[in-house]
Amino acid sequence: MSGIRDVRTADRGDLPLVAQLLHNFNTEFDEPSPGPALLLQRLTEIIAADTQVLTIGRPPHGLAVLRFRLALWSPGLECHLAELYVAPQYRGRGDGGALLDAALDTARRRGADTMDLGTAEDDTAARALYASRGFRQTDQPGDGPVNLWYEREL
Amino acid sequence: MSGIRDVRTADRGDLPLVAQLLHNFNTEFDEPSPGPALLLQRLTEIIAADTQVLTIGRPPHGLAVLRFRLALWSPGLECHLAELYVAPQYRGRGDGGALLDAALDTARRRGADTMDLGTAEDDTAARALYASRGFRQTDQPGDGPVNLWYEREL
Repeated sequence: MSGIRDVRTADRGDLPLVAQLLHNFNTEFDEPSPGPALLLQRLTEIIAADTQVLTIGRPPHGLAVLRFRLALWSPGLECHLAELYVAPQYRGRGDGGALLDAALDTARRRGADTMDLGTAEDDTAARALYASRGFRQTDQPGDGPVNLWYEREL
Repeated sequence: MSGIRDVRTADRGDLPLVAQLLHNFNTEFDEPSPGPALLLQRLTEIIAADTQVLTIGRPPHGLAVLRFRLALWSPGLECHLAELYVAPQYRGRGDGGALLDAALDTARRRGADTMDLGTAEDDTAARALYASRGFRQTDQPGDGPVNLWYEREL
Protein backbone atom coordinates (compact mmCIF):
# COMPACT_ATOMS: atom_id res chain seq x y z
CA MET A 1 0.00 0.00 0.00
CA SER A 2 2.93 2.33 0.53
CA GLY A 3 3.73 4.55 -2.41
CA ILE A 4 0.16 5.75 -2.97
CA ARG A 5 0.66 9.03 -1.06
CA ASP A 6 1.56 7.08 2.02
CA VAL A 7 -1.80 5.33 2.29
CA ARG A 8 -1.42 2.24 4.41
CA THR A 9 -3.39 -0.18 6.56
CA ALA A 10 -3.61 0.99 10.16
CA ASP A 11 -2.11 -1.33 12.73
CA ARG A 12 -2.81 -1.48 16.44
CA GLY A 13 -0.33 1.31 17.13
CA ASP A 14 -2.21 3.69 14.82
CA LEU A 15 -5.57 3.17 16.46
CA PRO A 16 -5.36 5.89 19.15
CA LEU A 17 -4.84 8.52 16.45
CA VAL A 18 -7.51 6.93 14.26
CA ALA A 19 -9.93 7.12 17.18
CA GLN A 20 -9.10 10.80 17.67
CA LEU A 21 -9.63 11.53 13.95
CA LEU A 22 -13.02 9.79 14.03
CA HIS A 23 -13.99 11.81 17.09
CA ASN A 24 -12.91 15.02 15.30
CA PHE A 25 -14.92 13.94 12.24
CA ASN A 26 -18.19 13.67 14.10
CA THR A 27 -17.52 16.76 16.16
CA GLU A 28 -16.92 18.76 12.97
CA PHE A 29 -20.23 17.61 11.51
CA ASP A 30 -22.24 17.98 14.73
CA GLU A 31 -22.78 14.26 15.05
CA PRO A 32 -22.62 12.52 18.43
CA SER A 33 -19.40 10.74 19.37
CA PRO A 34 -18.79 8.42 22.31
CA GLY A 35 -15.30 9.96 22.63
CA PRO A 36 -11.83 8.79 21.59
CA ALA A 37 -11.39 6.25 24.40
CA LEU A 38 -14.53 4.29 23.57
CA LEU A 39 -13.84 4.58 19.84
CA LEU A 40 -10.39 3.10 20.40
CA GLN A 41 -11.91 0.18 22.26
CA ARG A 42 -14.43 -0.44 19.50
CA LEU A 43 -11.86 -0.07 16.70
CA THR A 44 -9.73 -2.72 18.36
CA GLU A 45 -12.72 -5.07 18.41
CA ILE A 46 -13.95 -4.53 14.87
CA ILE A 47 -10.51 -4.72 13.31
CA ALA A 48 -10.19 -8.16 14.86
CA ALA A 49 -13.56 -9.08 13.32
CA ASP A 50 -14.43 -7.68 9.89
CA THR A 51 -12.86 -4.25 9.44
CA GLN A 52 -9.82 -2.72 7.76
CA VAL A 53 -8.77 0.89 8.36
CA LEU A 54 -6.62 2.80 5.88
CA THR A 55 -4.76 5.95 6.87
CA ILE A 56 -3.00 8.66 4.91
CA GLY A 57 -0.01 10.64 6.16
CA ARG A 58 2.57 10.08 8.89
CA PRO A 59 1.22 10.76 11.39
CA PRO A 60 -2.21 10.04 9.88
CA HIS A 61 -4.42 13.00 9.01
CA GLY A 62 -7.08 11.06 7.10
CA LEU A 63 -8.70 7.66 7.13
CA ALA A 64 -11.06 5.21 5.48
CA VAL A 65 -12.98 2.52 7.42
CA LEU A 66 -13.91 -0.56 5.37
CA ARG A 67 -16.27 -3.19 6.71
CA PHE A 68 -16.62 -6.58 5.03
CA ARG A 69 -19.16 -9.40 5.09
CA LEU A 70 -20.32 -12.21 2.85
CA ALA A 71 -22.56 -10.88 0.08
CA LEU A 72 -26.01 -12.39 -0.42
CA TRP A 73 -26.43 -11.73 -4.15
CA SER A 74 -22.90 -12.38 -5.37
CA PRO A 75 -20.17 -14.90 -4.63
CA GLY A 76 -17.70 -12.55 -2.94
CA LEU A 77 -17.75 -10.11 -0.07
CA GLU A 78 -19.59 -6.83 0.12
CA CYS A 79 -17.62 -3.87 1.41
CA HIS A 80 -19.25 -0.97 3.22
CA LEU A 81 -17.18 2.21 3.23
CA ALA A 82 -18.30 3.26 6.69
CA GLU A 83 -16.14 6.37 7.04
CA LEU A 84 -13.92 8.53 4.81
CA TYR A 85 -12.32 11.55 6.41
CA VAL A 86 -9.50 14.01 5.81
CA ALA A 87 -8.68 16.60 8.46
CA PRO A 88 -9.76 20.12 7.38
CA GLN A 89 -6.26 21.58 6.99
CA TYR A 90 -5.28 18.78 4.55
CA ARG A 91 -8.24 19.08 2.18
CA GLY A 92 -8.15 20.15 -1.44
CA ARG A 93 -5.04 18.24 -2.43
CA GLY A 94 -6.52 14.91 -3.43
CA ASP A 95 -6.07 12.93 -0.23
CA GLY A 96 -9.72 11.84 -0.20
CA GLY A 97 -9.32 10.50 -3.72
CA ALA A 98 -6.10 8.71 -2.78
CA LEU A 99 -7.86 7.10 0.19
CA LEU A 100 -10.84 6.11 -1.95
CA ASP A 101 -8.63 4.63 -4.68
CA ALA A 102 -6.76 2.65 -2.04
CA ALA A 103 -10.07 1.55 -0.51
CA LEU A 104 -11.31 0.22 -3.86
CA ASP A 105 -8.02 -1.59 -4.43
CA THR A 106 -8.02 -3.03 -0.91
CA ALA A 107 -11.61 -4.23 -1.21
CA ARG A 108 -10.95 -5.96 -4.54
CA ARG A 109 -7.89 -7.71 -3.18
CA ARG A 110 -9.79 -8.84 -0.11
CA GLY A 111 -12.46 -10.44 -2.34
CA ALA A 112 -15.25 -7.88 -2.40
CA ASP A 113 -17.33 -7.54 -5.54
CA THR A 114 -19.39 -4.51 -4.47
CA MET A 115 -18.82 -1.42 -2.34
CA ASP A 116 -21.56 0.78 -0.87
CA LEU A 117 -21.72 3.89 1.28
CA GLY A 118 -24.07 6.58 2.54
CA THR A 119 -23.44 10.29 2.17
CA ALA A 120 -25.38 13.49 2.77
CA GLU A 121 -27.17 15.08 -0.15
CA ASP A 122 -25.60 18.48 0.60
CA ASP A 123 -22.02 17.19 0.75
CA THR A 124 -21.29 18.08 -2.85
CA ALA A 125 -17.53 17.54 -2.54
CA ALA A 126 -17.99 13.98 -1.32
CA ARG A 127 -20.67 13.25 -3.91
CA ALA A 128 -18.44 14.52 -6.72
CA LEU A 129 -15.62 12.33 -5.42
CA TYR A 130 -17.81 9.20 -5.34
CA ALA A 131 -19.22 9.91 -8.80
CA SER A 132 -15.68 10.35 -10.16
CA ARG A 133 -14.81 6.85 -8.89
CA GLY A 134 -17.79 5.15 -10.53
CA PHE A 135 -20.26 5.07 -7.66
CA ARG A 136 -23.89 5.26 -8.71
CA GLN A 137 -27.04 6.35 -6.93
CA THR A 138 -29.26 3.88 -8.72
CA ASP A 139 -29.51 0.13 -9.24
CA GLN A 140 -30.88 0.58 -12.73
CA PRO A 141 -28.93 1.10 -15.93
CA GLY A 142 -29.05 4.75 -16.98
CA ASP A 143 -30.83 7.28 -14.83
CA GLY A 144 -33.24 5.29 -12.71
CA PRO A 145 -34.61 6.38 -9.33
CA VAL A 146 -31.91 7.15 -6.76
CA ASN A 147 -31.51 5.10 -3.60
CA LEU A 148 -32.03 6.69 -0.21
CA TRP A 149 -30.45 5.73 3.09
CA TYR A 150 -32.79 5.40 6.09
CA GLU A 151 -31.76 4.87 9.68
CA ARG A 152 -33.24 4.83 13.15
CA GLU A 153 -32.16 4.16 16.70
CA LEU A 154 -33.63 1.13 18.42
CA MET B 1 -42.07 -14.59 17.46
CA SER B 2 -45.20 -16.66 16.76
CA GLY B 3 -48.45 -14.84 17.19
CA ILE B 4 -47.46 -11.73 15.23
CA ARG B 5 -49.24 -12.79 12.06
CA ASP B 6 -47.13 -15.90 11.93
CA VAL B 7 -43.83 -14.05 11.62
CA ARG B 8 -41.01 -16.37 12.66
CA THR B 9 -37.30 -16.90 12.25
CA ALA B 10 -36.50 -19.03 9.21
CA ASP B 11 -34.72 -22.29 9.91
CA ARG B 12 -32.69 -24.39 7.51
CA GLY B 13 -35.80 -26.09 6.18
CA ASP B 14 -37.32 -22.75 5.15
CA LEU B 15 -34.32 -21.62 3.15
CA PRO B 16 -35.23 -23.17 -0.25
CA LEU B 17 -38.47 -21.18 -0.25
CA VAL B 18 -36.70 -18.07 1.07
CA ALA B 19 -34.21 -18.37 -1.80
CA GLN B 20 -37.07 -18.63 -4.28
CA LEU B 21 -38.79 -15.55 -2.79
CA LEU B 22 -35.55 -13.54 -3.03
CA HIS B 23 -35.15 -14.62 -6.64
CA ASN B 24 -38.75 -13.57 -7.37
CA PHE B 25 -38.08 -10.24 -5.63
CA ASN B 26 -35.19 -9.28 -7.88
CA THR B 27 -36.91 -10.63 -10.97
CA GLU B 28 -39.96 -8.47 -10.23
CA PHE B 29 -37.80 -5.36 -9.90
CA ASP B 30 -35.57 -6.12 -12.90
CA GLU B 31 -32.51 -6.64 -10.72
CA PRO B 32 -30.03 -9.40 -11.47
CA SER B 33 -30.29 -12.63 -9.48
CA PRO B 34 -27.82 -15.51 -9.36
CA GLY B 35 -30.81 -17.88 -9.20
CA PRO B 36 -32.46 -19.79 -6.34
CA ALA B 37 -29.79 -22.51 -6.08
CA LEU B 38 -26.92 -20.09 -5.51
CA LEU B 39 -29.05 -17.94 -3.22
CA LEU B 40 -29.82 -21.02 -1.11
CA GLN B 41 -26.11 -21.76 -0.82
CA ARG B 42 -25.36 -18.19 0.25
CA LEU B 43 -28.27 -18.00 2.68
CA THR B 44 -26.98 -21.11 4.41
CA GLU B 45 -23.56 -19.47 4.79
CA ILE B 46 -24.67 -16.06 6.01
CA ILE B 47 -27.21 -17.43 8.48
CA ALA B 48 -24.34 -19.33 10.07
CA ALA B 49 -22.35 -16.09 10.24
CA ASP B 50 -24.22 -12.85 10.95
CA THR B 51 -27.73 -13.01 9.50
CA GLN B 52 -31.28 -13.70 10.66
CA VAL B 53 -34.16 -14.20 8.23
CA LEU B 54 -37.77 -13.64 9.27
CA THR B 55 -40.65 -15.06 7.26
CA ILE B 56 -44.38 -14.45 7.26
CA GLY B 57 -47.01 -17.04 6.37
CA ARG B 58 -47.01 -20.81 6.18
CA PRO B 59 -45.65 -21.48 3.68
CA PRO B 60 -43.77 -18.18 3.68
CA HIS B 61 -44.91 -15.50 1.23
CA GLY B 62 -42.78 -12.67 2.62
CA LEU B 63 -39.43 -12.16 4.31
CA ALA B 64 -37.01 -9.82 6.02
CA VAL B 65 -33.21 -10.30 5.94
CA LEU B 66 -31.36 -8.79 8.92
CA ARG B 67 -27.58 -8.54 8.99
CA PHE B 68 -25.70 -7.76 12.18
CA ARG B 69 -22.23 -6.53 13.07
CA LEU B 70 -20.49 -4.68 15.86
CA ALA B 71 -21.24 -0.96 15.66
CA LEU B 72 -18.36 1.52 15.59
CA TRP B 73 -20.10 4.53 17.17
CA SER B 74 -22.22 2.79 19.80
CA PRO B 75 -21.74 -0.09 22.21
CA GLY B 76 -24.15 -2.57 20.61
CA LEU B 77 -24.65 -4.08 17.19
CA GLU B 78 -25.79 -2.34 14.06
CA CYS B 79 -28.50 -4.06 12.05
CA HIS B 80 -28.82 -3.64 8.31
CA LEU B 81 -32.26 -4.52 6.94
CA ALA B 82 -30.91 -5.94 3.70
CA GLU B 83 -34.20 -7.15 2.21
CA LEU B 84 -37.92 -6.75 2.96
CA TYR B 85 -40.31 -8.46 0.56
CA VAL B 86 -43.93 -9.55 0.36
CA ALA B 87 -45.11 -11.49 -2.68
CA PRO B 88 -47.40 -9.37 -4.90
CA GLN B 89 -50.62 -11.29 -4.27
CA TYR B 90 -50.26 -10.77 -0.48
CA ARG B 91 -49.71 -7.01 -0.48
CA GLY B 92 -51.98 -4.37 0.98
CA ARG B 93 -52.91 -6.20 4.14
CA GLY B 94 -50.10 -5.08 6.44
CA ASP B 95 -47.67 -7.97 6.10
CA GLY B 96 -44.76 -5.63 5.34
CA GLY B 97 -45.50 -3.70 8.52
CA ALA B 98 -45.76 -6.92 10.52
CA LEU B 99 -42.38 -8.05 9.16
CA LEU B 100 -40.82 -4.67 9.90
CA ASP B 101 -42.21 -4.59 13.45
CA ALA B 102 -40.83 -8.07 14.03
CA ALA B 103 -37.49 -7.02 12.52
CA LEU B 104 -37.22 -4.08 14.93
CA ASP B 105 -38.11 -6.32 17.87
CA THR B 106 -35.66 -9.01 16.78
CA ALA B 107 -32.84 -6.51 16.31
CA ARG B 108 -33.40 -4.99 19.75
CA ARG B 109 -33.40 -8.38 21.41
CA ARG B 110 -30.23 -9.37 19.60
CA GLY B 111 -28.47 -6.27 20.94
CA ALA B 112 -28.63 -3.81 18.05
CA ASP B 113 -28.94 -0.12 18.82
CA THR B 114 -29.41 1.13 15.26
CA MET B 115 -31.03 -0.18 12.08
CA ASP B 116 -30.34 1.12 8.57
CA LEU B 117 -31.55 0.29 5.07
CA GLY B 118 -31.54 1.55 1.50
CA THR B 119 -34.65 2.03 -0.60
CA ALA B 120 -35.49 3.55 -3.97
CA GLU B 121 -36.76 7.12 -4.07
CA ASP B 122 -39.73 6.12 -6.24
CA ASP B 123 -40.88 3.28 -3.95
CA THR B 124 -43.40 5.42 -2.14
CA ALA B 125 -45.10 2.48 -0.42
CA ALA B 126 -41.83 1.32 1.14
CA ARG B 127 -40.83 4.85 2.10
CA ALA B 128 -44.18 5.47 3.80
CA LEU B 129 -43.77 2.19 5.69
CA TYR B 130 -40.27 3.11 6.92
CA ALA B 131 -41.37 6.61 7.92
CA SER B 132 -44.32 5.14 9.85
CA ARG B 133 -41.86 3.05 11.88
CA GLY B 134 -39.59 5.96 12.81
CA PHE B 135 -36.90 5.67 10.15
CA ARG B 136 -35.32 8.98 9.16
CA GLN B 137 -33.50 10.13 6.06
CA THR B 138 -31.20 12.48 7.91
CA ASP B 139 -28.65 12.35 10.72
CA GLN B 140 -29.58 15.80 11.93
CA PRO B 141 -32.38 16.72 14.29
CA GLY B 142 -35.29 18.19 12.36
CA ASP B 143 -35.15 18.42 8.59
CA GLY B 144 -31.48 18.25 7.71
CA PRO B 145 -30.07 17.09 4.38
CA VAL B 146 -31.14 13.57 3.42
CA ASN B 147 -28.64 10.74 3.13
CA LEU B 148 -28.07 9.04 -0.20
CA TRP B 149 -26.97 5.48 -0.84
CA TYR B 150 -24.14 4.97 -3.35
CA GLU B 151 -22.90 1.67 -4.70
CA ARG B 152 -20.58 0.29 -7.33
CA GLU B 153 -19.32 -3.05 -8.55
CA LEU B 154 -15.63 -3.75 -8.09
